[in-house]
Amino acid sequence: MKEAAKKEVQRIPPKAADLSEWYTQVCLQAQLADYAPVRGCIVMRPYAYAIWELITAEFDRRFKATGHQNAYFPLLIPESLLVREAEHVEGFAPEVAWVTEGGGERLTERLAIRPTSEAVIGMMYAKWIQSHRDLPVLINQWANVVRWEKATRPFLRTLEFLWQEGHTAHATREEAAAEVQQMLEIYREVAEDVLALPVISGRKSENEKFAGALSTYAIEALMPDGKALQAGTSHELGQNFARAYDITFTDVDEQTKHVWTTSWGVSWRILGGLIMAHGDDNGLVLPPAIAPHQVVVVPIPRKGADDVLPAARALADELRGSARVHLDDRAEQTAPWKFNEWELRGVPVRVELGKRDVDAQVVTIARRDTLSRETVPRAEAGARITALLAEIQAGLLARARADRDARTIVARDHASFLAALRAQQGFVVAPWCEDAACELEIKAQTGAVTRVIKGGAESGASCAFCGKPAKVTAYFARSY
Amino acid sequence: MKEAAKKEVQRIPPKAADLSEWYTQVCLQAQLADYAPVRGCIVMRPYAYAIWELITAEFDRRFKATGHQNAYFPLLIPESLLVREAEHVEGFAPEVAWVTEGGGERLTERLAIRPTSEAVIGMMYAKWIQSHRDLPVLINQWANVVRWEKATRPFLRTLEFLWQEGHTAHATREEAAAEVQQMLEIYREVAEDVLALPVISGRKSENEKFAGALSTYAIEALMPDGKALQAGTSHELGQNFARAYDITFTDVDEQTKHVWTTSWGVSWRILGGLIMAHGDDNGLVLPPAIAPHQVVVVPIPRKGADDVLPAARALADELRGSARVHLDDRAEQTAPWKFNEWELRGVPVRVELGKRDVDAQVVTIARRDTLSRETVPRAEAGARITALLAEIQAGLLARARADRDARTIVARDHASFLAALRAQQGFVVAPWCEDAACELEIKAQTGAVTRVIKGGAESGASCAFCGKPAKVTAYFARSY
Repeated sequence: MKEAAKKEVQRIPPKAADLSEWYTQVCLQAQLADYAPVRGCIVMRPYAYAIWELITAEFDRRFKATGHQNAYFPLLIPESLLVREAEHVEGFAPEVAWVTEGGGERLTERLAIRPTSEAVIGMMYAKWIQSHRDLPVLINQWANVVRWEKATRPFLRTLEFLWQEGHTAHATREEAAAEVQQMLEIYREVAEDVLALPVISGRKSENEKFAGALSTYAIEALMPDGKALQAGTSHELGQNFARAYDITFTDVDEQTKHVWTTSWGVSWRILGGLIMAHGDDNGLVLPPAIAPHQVVVVPIPRKGADDVLPAARALADELRGSARVHLDDRAEQTAPWKFNEWELRGVPVRVELGKRDVDAQVVTIARRDTLSRETVPRAEAGARITALLAEIQAGLLARARADRDARTIVARDHASFLAALRAQQGFVVAPWCEDAACELEIKAQTGAVTRVIKGGAESGASCAFCGKPAKVTAYFARSY
Repeated sequence: MKEAAKKEVQRIPPKAADLSEWYTQVCLQAQLADYAPVRGCIVMRPYAYAIWELITAEFDRRFKATGHQNAYFPLLIPESLLVREAEHVEGFAPEVAWVTEGGGERLTERLAIRPTSEAVIGMMYAKWIQSHRDLPVLINQWANVVRWEKATRPFLRTLEFLWQEGHTAHATREEAAAEVQQMLEIYREVAEDVLALPVISGRKSENEKFAGALSTYAIEALMPDGKALQAGTSHELGQNFARAYDITFTDVDEQTKHVWTTSWGVSWRILGGLIMAHGDDNGLVLPPAIAPHQVVVVPIPRKGADDVLPAARALADELRGSARVHLDDRAEQTAPWKFNEWELRGVPVRVELGKRDVDAQVVTIARRDTLSRETVPRAEAGARITALLAEIQAGLLARARADRDARTIVARDHASFLAALRAQQGFVVAPWCEDAACELEIKAQTGAVTRVIKGGAESGASCAFCGKPAKVTAYFARSY
């Protein structure tokens, strides 16, 4: 006999008491992820995949609306190709998984499983681009990549992950820079308007930028433990990769020039940020925009009341016109058990329908974000639920934003800067000298680094840490 | 200076003269595929990917409508897990790519890049399935897999390919068998109704079935060179994988039993079949259902005729209500050059609009399948094009089916059977003994094997090859 690993809803520890264990248990018990046999790899279970499909559709639609096309580039990259851009390979080589045997034979050259695809895409762009008429090239791919990470957590950091990587080539630096900002803005928009995840966007410091980039821009979300989560990056690659992979074009002036490239990516990590930001002690809380079931209808049958299930079915059918609705008509589970399960799985709105509701022509509506319940006339249920979904979507963003702002501290001098970082509440905004050595020393003393640089410093300001003249205003935090 | 690799439409060899070279040139020149740096790997370029998105959406919709959910399982499978099902590993081991180094260290156990995912999914199902209430489990994944093939061709056989693999678990053999037939029928439906690719569906012989399956069913399309292309497979895995991976459940009778599993897959190979089946000497011919541009509007500007481009734009906008329309308003290319290019890329309907058309309030419509042109009143353009798209879709299937049927020969005796197979025209339908040794001898003498078994033999019939009593009617052909 197999062990009776029961499917009852188990206890999730309080979120505030142990965020890390809370997160893991929500991932497992809400059936979002499970551990795979290879360390650091996970299975994205159907419920999480359904959320991911909704998230990716939102990104994909915006990529296409801004002229990008999808394509698919190969998983395997020869070592000799990967090493052409020196900084790039230095950054990624320690994390590469290598294929050394195939078809029963030892390969003459190691093949990297792509950690990112600049190398192979650069080589193809060199073949495809000849003239200024071929530019810009605006391509995105949805793919899996592998990075041999040491410490891993479901979605937030995994050996293999799903992501999208956009790769574009342009005739001028200005056009490439505009592309980088456009994609960063799309990331911000999806994070905030769809995932209800408020983010700070800005430029990365030299220490924190992408290996091989001129500049990296990122969106950063604040997690409940005060750590920042990098949720999307957009890179100005300059002509570094164009030189390494010989991507040139004949310009209108008949001169041969190197193109200017960009790359930008978002991974399933953003789903981890979503789980962590909105969830509560009862489990997951999903923004309606990406909830596979926006509404669950739970009939509460009673012996001798044959009209409850048909009424629930009719209500679900009616609501399907304006929302993603699931009717939970399982006979083997009790209504309270179902309430718990759908709370655990974060469904934004639950509609309960018992014999008394049917008789009184009302429905009981419970909202997941506030856990409050209300009774509304049956005839008004559709309109009320539509309004509620919009209210919940906006409310989650407002709540997360207020929380983020409350945990964002401005520091101008050494003592308050260090105290704020050591308190580990959230972002510390401070004037900064932009010196790489200064950042390393801050990291050594507090564990925090710059997350993004957001504009220049106030005139005459000094670096909050080292006292040298400040060049910029930076957001500091520890990070995932 | 870079070589002037011009983007002019190059010569494609006549399809009948050299199918293989024709196919390669269509893939390259229509910008469907390009060769990647690793032997046998390709890039799926944006135009092919757009077709693939339309194809996968058709499959995905039907999978979901039949109760399946998508999920994502890991790329890497430990060797010890892969080898648990003996026949399965024997079939796949020679084709596996192995990861042996990661994170700068030699791994203690080799990790296979999935050639297919029965092993890792079996292990997860063993964790997830406890009770008959957990069944059936109906999961599909869209993923990349790697098989170390020797001879490769774009889409048709590549080291890495994109596919979907469905994996289901059931309480009874009957239910699993019904699932296998349901998915086979979905494959047939998409192949015929969407891709206009007529297929024969049926069971595979023992020699040809999937490694580890009880029975494999497949759809087979006939290519212009008389070879069959296996375009989708659906496997009854019996309890083989359930035993190997210990997938058990407590049944209603309180007994612990092994589940019955199935798997079924379609890959980007079906895109190769589509290209080969419908194309002609001018290039690709796409069925409207999966054409990224169903209609291309080409204005023919003339000096002093400023109204042509606005008229083309208005027409394109109007047509967008009922079709996927592309307006080719590039100034740097001539109209004839555009006609050639869109023919090469297989766009079903081309609308030409010149000064004379605008003045006469007509449009000229060219259809890709027959290369015929007609002039219709501007006011009727929308309705005519809608009708044409349906006509082309149906016409391509009818043409391919008539061609397939004309090249399907029935043979009942040794001499005509051998002659038909050696003529290599297409399918040879014959009574067969179902003996594995007989099939191997047929293969040795003709290069052909059974493609599918379609029902029993006529009473008293003898095997067309060996003369022993026939058990079944089989379709024979050489294959891709």
